Amino acid sequence: MSYNLSMLTDLYQITMANGYWENGWYDKEAVFHLFFRKHPFQGKYTIACGLEQVMDYLNDIRYDVDDIRYLANIKDRDGKALFGESFLNYLQRFKFECDVDAVPEGTVVFPHTPLIRIKGPLIQAQLIETTLLNLVNFSTLIATKASRIVDAAKGDTVLEFGLRRAQGPDGAISASRAAYIGGCHATSNVLAGKIYDIPVKGTHAHSWVMGHETELDSFRHYAKAMPGNCIFLVDTYDTIQGVKNAIKVAYELKQKGYEMIGVRLDSGDLAALSIEARYLLDEAGLKDALIVASNDLDEYNIRKLKEKGAKITVWGVGTRLSTAYDQPALGGVYKMAALRDKGGEWEYKVKLSEQAIKVSNPGILNTHRYYNEALPVMDVMVNDEGGESSQSMITWDGMNHDFGTMEFETLLEPIFKKGKLIYEKPGIHEIRKRTLSQLQLFQHAETYPVGLERNLHELKLELIKKHK
Amino acid sequence: MSYNLSMLTDLYQITMANGYWENGWYDKEAVFHLFFRKHPFQGKYTIACGLEQVMDYLNDIRYDVDDIRYLANIKDRDGKALFGESFLNYLQRFKFECDVDAVPEGTVVFPHTPLIRIKGPLIQAQLIETTLLNLVNFSTLIATKASRIVDAAKGDTVLEFGLRRAQGPDGAISASRAAYIGGCHATSNVLAGKIYDIPVKGTHAHSWVMGHETELDSFRHYAKAMPGNCIFLVDTYDTIQGVKNAIKVAYELKQKGYEMIGVRLDSGDLAALSIEARYLLDEAGLKDALIVASNDLDEYNIRKLKEKGAKITVWGVGTRLSTAYDQPALGGVYKMAALRDKGGEWEYKVKLSEQAIKVSNPGILNTHRYYNEALPVMDVMVNDEGGESSQSMITWDGMNHDFGTMEFETLLEPIFKKGKLIYEKPGIHEIRKRTLSQLQLFQHAETYPVGLERNLHELKLELIKKHK
Repeated sequence: MSYNLSMLTDLYQITMANGYWENGWYDKEAVFHLFFRKHPFQGKYTIACGLEQVMDYLNDIRYDVDDIRYLANIKDRDGKALFGESFLNYLQRFKFECDVDAVPEGTVVFPHTPLIRIKGPLIQAQLIETTLLNLVNFSTLIATKASRIVDAAKGDTVLEFGLRRAQGPDGAISASRAAYIGGCHATSNVLAGKIYDIPVKGTHAHSWVMGHETELDSFRHYAKAMPGNCIFLVDTYDTIQGVKNAIKVAYELKQKGYEMIGVRLDSGDLAALSIEARYLLDEAGLKDALIVASNDLDEYNIRKLKEKGAKITVWGVGTRLSTAYDQPALGGVYKMAALRDKGGEWEYKVKLSEQAIKVSNPGILNTHRYYNEALPVMDVMVNDEGGESSQSMITWDGMNHDFGTMEFETLLEPIFKKGKLIYEKPGIHEIRKRTLSQLQLFQHAETYPVGLERNLHELKLELIKKHK
Repeated sequence: MSYNLSMLTDLYQITMANGYWENGWYDKEAVFHLFFRKHPFQGKYTIACGLEQVMDYLNDIRYDVDDIRYLANIKDRDGKALFGESFLNYLQRFKFECDVDAVPEGTVVFPHTPLIRIKGPLIQAQLIETTLLNLVNFSTLIATKASRIVDAAKGDTVLEFGLRRAQGPDGAISASRAAYIGGCHATSNVLAGKIYDIPVKGTHAHSWVMGHETELDSFRHYAKAMPGNCIFLVDTYDTIQGVKNAIKVAYELKQKGYEMIGVRLDSGDLAALSIEARYLLDEAGLKDALIVASNDLDEYNIRKLKEKGAKITVWGVGTRLSTAYDQPALGGVYKMAALRDKGGEWEYKVKLSEQAIKVSNPGILNTHRYYNEALPVMDVMVNDEGGESSQSMITWDGMNHDFGTMEFETLLEPIFKKGKLIYEKPGIHEIRKRTLSQLQLFQHAETYPVGLERNLHELKLELIKKHK
């Protein structure tokens, strides 16, 4: 399953690296930050995710002989080799040397603050941009989507069923991992379960029922083969008749010492059908039988179904979770914030834009999360190499917030030091717990102030003035 | 890059296979069809794509020792092993034995008609469902999206730039392939270019400009390193000033015998900026210089920009193409249509639904595409084992169409025969050509009739009656 992603990049990263090389910028060092500008889904928070994949990628970055051969054959418009031989030699002996600091997976994060900071040779920091964005954008998007769905389910179990309509094999595998980190309880995706130790769930589809003479036969057959895994899909022909057939088989199971786990509804008016199913199940003494529902679910219609009094206890969520249907991409970006000759002074950088909010932030950035009585109160972006703090912050809309000497937590953790992996991966269950406890911390934060430490803010204004 | 997808499936496919096995249904044979119910993007056509990935998957399907070990450890709710030992032994010696027929990639296809038909052991046909859906849904979605964008570009070059915001590594790689098949001219994705022989394109990003003291310096530096690959990104600070700097460097290039390829706009009012850029370039005698534009483009805003008179000649399309932003999933399904004991008579199957359009079609289905003077006039779904044809078709809205003895083409081609791959993969450039010529054929078809051959239609009605 593991494959090398070093070539999974935009061609222009390699042309730029080639350009730096050809111009003799071997020793330039740069700082880049990966961040996003807006919470997805018009939401109030984002869950950082994808760092493990980033670690795997960076730890294994290399250009194999056939990669070099491929690159050597790319021609410019005059038919000449696009890349110089000396640069290709450099790629062939490439050794990753950057410092990488990142926010741990499962952390609630806010726009403009760095999810990942890269500091090291300019050529290297440039070459890895696209892959980092690809890995972090998608996982962060899905973890956030999942947490919103789990929130809407208000304590009910949420199963991720998105594989068949996910965006390609890895779209599905990454999505299953991120969905679990976002708070889902299990996945239908066997390969993701195997790779990432996520609980897997599943019983049967319509085709199981269609393969038998009658629906009742099909449930009996299933119960015979797997008496301890009976959730019957009841809507192949007529949902309520299906529930009645499931109840018959539940009795038969009981006589053999087994319990039917529940029924699954996959079409029709899920609120009304679940209420009727609950009534029939309760009447039959099957008060513990679960009612699982699926069919284009997301946080919006789960909330509506709950308002309608739906008696659903387990939510199977597929397409709309695994593709983040209402916003299928997070607009994460990766911007240069400082540059220097090796060992020299940092020269801070901003990228201008007609939209103020799109102007990038200069510095060797980090985020300090300030706490008041164990609750987070603001995220302050600071320059890690910027000297004394002003003890106050300016938000994007120009408001001042004093943090004085309150307690804070530093969000970036060291991951690679001069190219060497030094971070110990937390297990997936631990990451998932972090998400859930982070969401607890932020659940009452209607608006949460985020901005630049005042000295950093002034540095930014100066740089903007200089360019204009 | 190649990895085994056999475990990339929903758990319930394996529980159903286990159920069939435990119940002694080793010899049951089934027919399943993979199809979709509605064109994506509220469009009038769909481009079939993803068959090559399906072939690779099916040709390599196997359950390794560690897969079996993983499955053996899955427990039911009573803590007992979910799968029987004899079934796991079967998986361990699994050998694919089905007949697979499919529509070639790059073919225009319509709702309800089979993209893939699987005929063979029920257990096997069931086990492969999810993976087939995952592979075909996504590639078909993106090829269709790409063809819509290429159509809107009316002969201009379209480059696919979606990697950084695609849904995971493979979301990007599959998307780049499907986008090229859908008619895009090149990709920025180096790995996809290498794997699939797609032309790759790219020059430089904002960070290149930011890394230099001035924009003009940065263009000169780039021109020095790669004089034959100069498309300057001009919007880092001020777009029009950027165009002027590019023109300066274009002159300097000319003196050395090189030509600037063009400029790229990535923000602001692309229509107005491109008109001004064109004026400046023409005035400077750079009539051949391209104007590349990017920034959240898709078929809708390309059309609007053209209406506003934009002077853009190359369109760089990213996020909205690679994630199919306005509809990020194709709702393809996989339904059982016939079942028999080995060597016995086929028993035809339908899945009912409250919505008539969701009732599945029975039979060993194929599609005959009828032609009148070399133009397709209707797609007739037929039962390949249904005997004499009635020479007429009933559409989904009940209309009758006679096709008599007109010429037709059979859309399904044999891919696997008893598990053996017999289809020769066409090359990607050939598939792309097929897409473009298919779109030509259908360009004037405002409404295109599709339905069931009359005898098949009547078989379906009978089966529905039987179930109700």
